[in-house]
Amino acid sequence: MYSFKNDYSEGAHPQILNALIETNMVQEEGYGEDHYSLQAAELLKEKMGRSDVAIHFLTGGTQTNLTAISAFLRPHHAAIAAITGHINVHETGAIEATGHKVLTVNSGKDGKLTPAGIQEVLDAHPDEHMVKPKLVYISDTTENGAVYTKNEVEQLSTFCKENYLYFYMDGARLGSALTSSANDLDLSDLPNLVDVFYVGGTKNGALLGEALVICNDALKEDFRFYMKQKGAMLAKGRLTGIQFLELFRDNLFFDLAAHANAMATKISEGIDAAGYGFLTPPVSNQIFPILPNTLLEELHQQFNFFDWEKVDDEHTAVRLVTSWATKEEAVDAFVESLKKKVTE
Amino acid sequence: MYSFKNDYSEGAHPQILNALIETNMVQEEGYGEDHYSLQAAELLKEKMGRSDVAIHFLTGGTQTNLTAISAFLRPHHAAIAAITGHINVHETGAIEATGHKVLTVNSGKDGKLTPAGIQEVLDAHPDEHMVKPKLVYISDTTENGAVYTKNEVEQLSTFCKENYLYFYMDGARLGSALTSSANDLDLSDLPNLVDVFYVGGTKNGALLGEALVICNDALKEDFRFYMKQKGAMLAKGRLTGIQFLELFRDNLFFDLAAHANAMATKISEGIDAAGYGFLTPPVSNQIFPILPNTLLEELHQQFNFFDWEKVDDEHTAVRLVTSWATKEEAVDAFVESLKKKVTE
Amino acid sequence: MYSFKNDYSEGAHPQILNALIETNMVQEEGYGEDHYSLQAAELLKEKMGRSDVAIHFLTGGTQTNLTAISAFLRPHHAAIAAITGHINVHETGAIEATGHKVLTVNSGKDGKLTPAGIQEVLDAHPDEHMVKPKLVYISDTTENGAVYTKNEVEQLSTFCKENYLYFYMDGARLGSALTSSANDLDLSDLPNLVDVFYVGGTKNGALLGEALVICNDALKEDFRFYMKQKGAMLAKGRLTGIQFLELFRDNLFFDLAAHANAMATKISEGIDAAGYGFLTPPVSNQIFPILPNTLLEELHQQFNFFDWEKVDDEHTAVRLVTSWATKEEAVDAFVESLKKKVTE
Amino acid sequence: MYSFKNDYSEGAHPQILNALIETNMVQEEGYGEDHYSLQAAELLKEKMGRSDVAIHFLTGGTQTNLTAISAFLRPHHAAIAAITGHINVHETGAIEATGHKVLTVNSGKDGKLTPAGIQEVLDAHPDEHMVKPKLVYISDTTENGAVYTKNEVEQLSTFCKENYLYFYMDGARLGSALTSSANDLDLSDLPNLVDVFYVGGTKNGALLGEALVICNDALKEDFRFYMKQKGAMLAKGRLTGIQFLELFRDNLFFDLAAHANAMATKISEGIDAAGYGFLTPPVSNQIFPILPNTLLEELHQQFNFFDWEKVDDEHTAVRLVTSWATKEEAVDAFVESLKKKVTE
Repeated sequence: MYSFKNDYSEGAHPQILNALIETNMVQEEGYGEDHYSLQAAELLKEKMGRSDVAIHFLTGGTQTNLTAISAFLRPHHAAIAAITGHINVHETGAIEATGHKVLTVNSGKDGKLTPAGIQEVLDAHPDEHMVKPKLVYISDTTENGAVYTKNEVEQLSTFCKENYLYFYMDGARLGSALTSSANDLDLSDLPNLVDVFYVGGTKNGALLGEALVICNDALKEDFRFYMKQKGAMLAKGRLTGIQFLELFRDNLFFDLAAHANAMATKISEGIDAAGYGFLTPPVSNQIFPILPNTLLEELHQQFNFFDWEKVDDEHTAVRLVTSWATKEEAVDAFVESLKKKVTE
Repeated sequence: MYSFKNDYSEGAHPQILNALIETNMVQEEGYGEDHYSLQAAELLKEKMGRSDVAIHFLTGGTQTNLTAISAFLRPHHAAIAAITGHINVHETGAIEATGHKVLTVNSGKDGKLTPAGIQEVLDAHPDEHMVKPKLVYISDTTENGAVYTKNEVEQLSTFCKENYLYFYMDGARLGSALTSSANDLDLSDLPNLVDVFYVGGTKNGALLGEALVICNDALKEDFRFYMKQKGAMLAKGRLTGIQFLELFRDNLFFDLAAHANAMATKISEGIDAAGYGFLTPPVSNQIFPILPNTLLEELHQQFNFFDWEKVDDEHTAVRLVTSWATKEEAVDAFVESLKKKVTE
Repeated sequence: MYSFKNDYSEGAHPQILNALIETNMVQEEGYGEDHYSLQAAELLKEKMGRSDVAIHFLTGGTQTNLTAISAFLRPHHAAIAAITGHINVHETGAIEATGHKVLTVNSGKDGKLTPAGIQEVLDAHPDEHMVKPKLVYISDTTENGAVYTKNEVEQLSTFCKENYLYFYMDGARLGSALTSSANDLDLSDLPNLVDVFYVGGTKNGALLGEALVICNDALKEDFRFYMKQKGAMLAKGRLTGIQFLELFRDNLFFDLAAHANAMATKISEGIDAAGYGFLTPPVSNQIFPILPNTLLEELHQQFNFFDWEKVDDEHTAVRLVTSWATKEEAVDAFVESLKKKVTE
Repeated sequence: MYSFKNDYSEGAHPQILNALIETNMVQEEGYGEDHYSLQAAELLKEKMGRSDVAIHFLTGGTQTNLTAISAFLRPHHAAIAAITGHINVHETGAIEATGHKVLTVNSGKDGKLTPAGIQEVLDAHPDEHMVKPKLVYISDTTENGAVYTKNEVEQLSTFCKENYLYFYMDGARLGSALTSSANDLDLSDLPNLVDVFYVGGTKNGALLGEALVICNDALKEDFRFYMKQKGAMLAKGRLTGIQFLELFRDNLFFDLAAHANAMATKISEGIDAAGYGFLTPPVSNQIFPILPNTLLEELHQQFNFFDWEKVDDEHTAVRLVTSWATKEEAVDAFVESLKKKVTE
C-alpha cells in the first residue's frame, strides 16, 4: 500500500540526515544560539534580500502559530481566518488556549481570504462588547491546496495596513506554493507584504522545523521569551538550524517542493485524462479530485489517501498529497490503476 | 576550548542517527501513531513491568512540563516545587502562562523537596482566598545535581497520597539519576511511586525527546488533545519514537548515562584529590566544585563552564556537566590542568 | 426622550433599595458568607424544590458565564452556542480568554439551539486535532427575544445527557422567559433539565446580581475558588444576597418580569394593529418589530431604542426592550405616536 | 458580639444609599456610560488636578488587580510584589490565571517594597529562560497596615522609571493611608508618581466599587475591552458612578477614612496604655497588637477579630480593623475590657 495521505510520511531528505551526521560531535551552544542556527538565519535573510527581519526556528506548525500569534496580540485581540483555516479547525483550539478568539470568514472552496471577507468581520466588531480583530491569518498553500497570487497577497497586505491589522502567513506548505505553476510570488516578496510568515520545513523534507520570519519591527522584541515559555525552544536548537542550512544552502528547499508539485501534476493530468474533475484546481502538492465511489473502492485497496467530502451519492472528493519523497513509480501506478479501471 | 557547560552540546548518539537513516524512507502514520512510537511505548512499558501506564513522546522538558501539568490541574490548582525547581525558575513562567501558580519551598542546597516542606505550603493555603495546592513537582536528578533515594521518594509518595496531591517527577536527567552511585531506585519502581514522570532523552543522547509516563489512571484521558493544543505533537512523531526505541532496545539509555556519571566522577575525584570541596555532594553528571577564583581564571581559558555562585570573596562554585558524549581525554585534561595549577 | 434601549436603564426596584437601607448597619461576614446570602440561597432552593443544588451569587452575566464555564471545562473542551449567543458575540471573547473555543451553530432568527444543530458540531469534531465539544450553552430568553418551550429544553437535555455534554442555561432574562405566554417551564423544572443555570437579577429589578444554580453534583466542588480567582466574589456579598432575598421572599421576581412582558405585549399589539410585523414572534420583554424607515425617523425623535438590522431598503427591524421599570404612559405614548404616524 | 474583623462588615454610608434612592428612576446609559459615572470620573480628575488620567470603575480589588495587570503585561511579563502582597497570597492565583507570574520580595513585617528588594528580583532574571519583571505592585496601606511615605513612593517611582517597570498601587485602603498620621502623600501626588492606582470604595463606605486611575498614556488604550472581557463592566455602571460621586462630591471619602483611623488610634492608645506592643506601628485602620493569650480568650468572648500570628507561647498578634462604620462605643468597650482585664 503506497500512501498519498500526507507529506510527512517519510523521514528527511538524505542530504539533511547527512548534515546531521557530519556535524554530530561538534560542541555547540544550546537553545538556538549555535552556529548552524545563526548561519541558517543569515542565509534565509540573504535569500529574502532583507537583513532586518528576525528569524526563529520552531518545531511544528501548531507550535509556531500559537507561539507567534499569542506573542503579537493583546488580550482583547482576535485573529481572523478562513473558516477552513488550520488555526480554526485543526489545532485543538491552540489559539483560544492562549486566550484569543479566532473569527472566521466563509471563504469558499479554495480556502482563500479576501479584503471583502475581512471587512465583514471588521464591520461586525465595532465596540468593546466584542473582541477587536487584529491579525489576519492566511495559509499559502491553503488547507485546500490553493495558491495565492501576488496580486491577491498585495491586496490583502494593503487592506491590513489600512486597517491596522497584522498580516500573518502560515507557510507550512510555502515551498509547494512558491514553486506552483499558479504562483507569481517570490520568497523575497514576502517580507514586503506580510508582517510575519513562516517557511515550513516539516512538510518539505526536514525531520521537523519551521522558520518564523518576523518582518514588522514592532513584533520582534523579546520573541525568544515567548518561544521558551511555550516550550518551543529546543535545547539542541542545532537540529533545526542544520536542517534549514541544508535546505537553503543551495536550492534544495525549492527542488524538493518542485518535485512534490510535479508528482501532483502528473496525477492530476492522469485524472483529467480519465475525464474526472477537481474540487479546486490542482495547483499544488495537495489535489482534490472528485471520483466515483466505485473507483475509489478499488483505489483504496492499493493506495492510502483521505476521503475529503461527499460530492453526491455516487461521487466523493478525495485528497491526494505528494511530497519530496513521492516516488514516480507510485504516481505512475496510481494513474495506471485509474486508467485501467476507467477503461474496464 | 572543550565545553562542560551542559549535556546538550553535541548531536545524538551515532546508533540513534543510524536508526534514523535506516528507517528514513519507510512510510508511516503521522502524529505519533507510527509503528516506531507504538513499539517504543510498548518497550518502555516492558522495561517498567507495567502494561497499564500511558506513554507519550514530547520534544523537550519545558514543553513536557507545561503540557502535562496544565492537563492535570483545574484552574484554581497550584503546583508545589522547590524554589530552585526548573518550572519555578527556568521555564519563563510556562506553568503560570497556562494559568497556574507555582508555590515554592525553600529546599536547601540540594534542591530536594521533603514532606515537611510541602506541609508548610499546605498549611499556608487553607481556603478559597488562596490557590489550592494539588501537584508536587520534583526533579531527579535535581537542578543542583542531587539524587533522590528510594526512601525519600517513598516518603513523598505516601505524603502526596495522603494529601490528595499528584506527584510529578521531572526526569530530564533521570538517566543520570538512575545510574548514580547515590541511587537505589529502579525505573520499574517509579510507576508505583509517582503519578506521572518523564524519561529524558534530550540530555541523554537523543536529538530531542522526552517520554512522558502517566501512571495514574485518572490522568490518562484525552492526553493527546492536550499535546496537540500545546503544539507538542510532531507531524513526524517517528522522530521521537525511533530514538526511544534505540535508547531502550538494549541498554543504551543506561549505558550513556553511566558514561556521563563516570566522567563526572573522574573529575570529582581529581578535584577532591586537589583538596577542593563541593557545594553539594558530586553524585550525578552535574557537579558543583568550589574553586579559588585564581584557579578558575586559568581553567576558563581552556574550558567552557558556568560560574554558579559566589561562595566567598576568593572562591566560586562552578557547574561542570558531563554527558554521553564527554571525551575522557577532555576530562583528563581538565584534571591535569587543575593539578598543575595547584602544585605550582 | 423615553428609552426602550434596554432593561437596565434604571436603578433597582424600591423594595430592594428599602431592604438595603433596613439591613445597612447590621454587621455581617464578608465574601458571601453573610446571613442574607445564605438565606437567599435557601429560599431559592425551596422555590425550586431542590435542596441539593449549589447556589452562588455573582454580579453580572459575562462574569457568571466566564467563571462558571471555565470552572467546568478542561483545557481541550469547547462550548457550543448559537452563533447569536451572548458568549459568542457580546462578551469580548471572555470564554476564549479563559482558554476555550466557542463552537457555533447557525441557529436562525430566534437564536435557539436544537439537537440537530449540536449534532452537526459533534460530527465535525471527531478527534484530537480538534477541540472536544463539552458544554452546550443556551439563553432563555434568547438574545433575540425567543422563549424555549419545555419540550425543546427536554429534548436538548436528553441529547446532552446522551452525548456527555454539560447543559448550561444563561438566564440573564429568565424572569421574562418564565412569565412569557410562550413558556410552559417552571423554575422548579430547571434543576431536572440542565446542569447549570443562572437566575438573572440585573435585568429584572436588582442593582446587580445573578444567582448561579449548579445542579450537577460533579460541578459543585470548589466553586468558591473559581469565583474568587475571577474577581467575582464581592467583599460585601450581602449586596447580592439581600437583593435576591427580596426578589424571592414573595413573588417580586415574577411580578417584575410579568410587568416587563405586559408592557412589551402592549407595544406589540399596537404595532400589530398598525399592520406591522416582527422579525421573531414578540413573546418576551425584547421585541423586534419591522418598521418603515420613515416612521422610525419620527419615533427616534421621541424614543431611544436600537436599530437591529436592515430588512430591505425601506424597512428596518428595531429592538424595543421593556423592564420592571417601564412606565405604562411611555408605552401608550409610543403606540400613540405610531398610530398617529400611520394614519397620517 | 461586636466585630473588628474587617472594614466591610456593614453596608454603605447612608449618604450613598440616599443618592441611590434619589437617582433610582432616572434612565441612563448602561456599562459605565451613564452621567453619574462620567461626572464621578471628572470629579476625581479635578481632585487630582489632572485632566489627562483615565478613570474606570470596577467592583472589587481582586477584579481590579487582575483586569488591570493582565491588560498591561505581555505574556512573558511578571509582576513583582511583596511576599505578603494581596495579589500574591489572597487572590486565589488571579494574576497567574491570566498567565503571569508574581515574583516576590521578602519585605519584612510592614509589607513594604523597596528599590533594593526589587533590584534583587531584577538581578535574578537576566534572560529569556526566565520571566521578564515588568510591573511593581504595592499596596497603600499595605496588607500589614503600614503606610508609605512620600519619599518612599518617590524612590520607588524613580527606580521603576529607570528600569522600565510599570508602577502599580493597590489602593483598596488608600483612604486610610491618605488620612494616616504617618502619611505625607496627597491624592494629587499619585498621578505624578505611579503609572496606575486605584481608589478603594468597598472598604471605605461604598457598597462596592474601586476607581482605577490610569496615569501612563501608554496603558490607557482599549481598557474598556479588558473590563468587558473580564466581566468587570456592570450593566448598571451607575451603581459605582453614583457612589464615587457621593464619596468625592465634598469630603466624604476622606472623612470616612479619618473616622476609621481615629477609631483605630483610640484602640491603639488603649493598648499602649495597658502596656502592650504591636507587630507593626499602628498607623492605619488595621492594627496588629501583641496580646497575651489569656487576655485574648476573654476579648474573643465579646469581640470578633482575627488572630494573626503566634509571637511566642504566651502571646499572639491579632488584627483589629476599624472602618467608617465603627462605633465609638464599641471602641470604648474594647479598651475598657482590656483595661479591666489588665488591672485584675
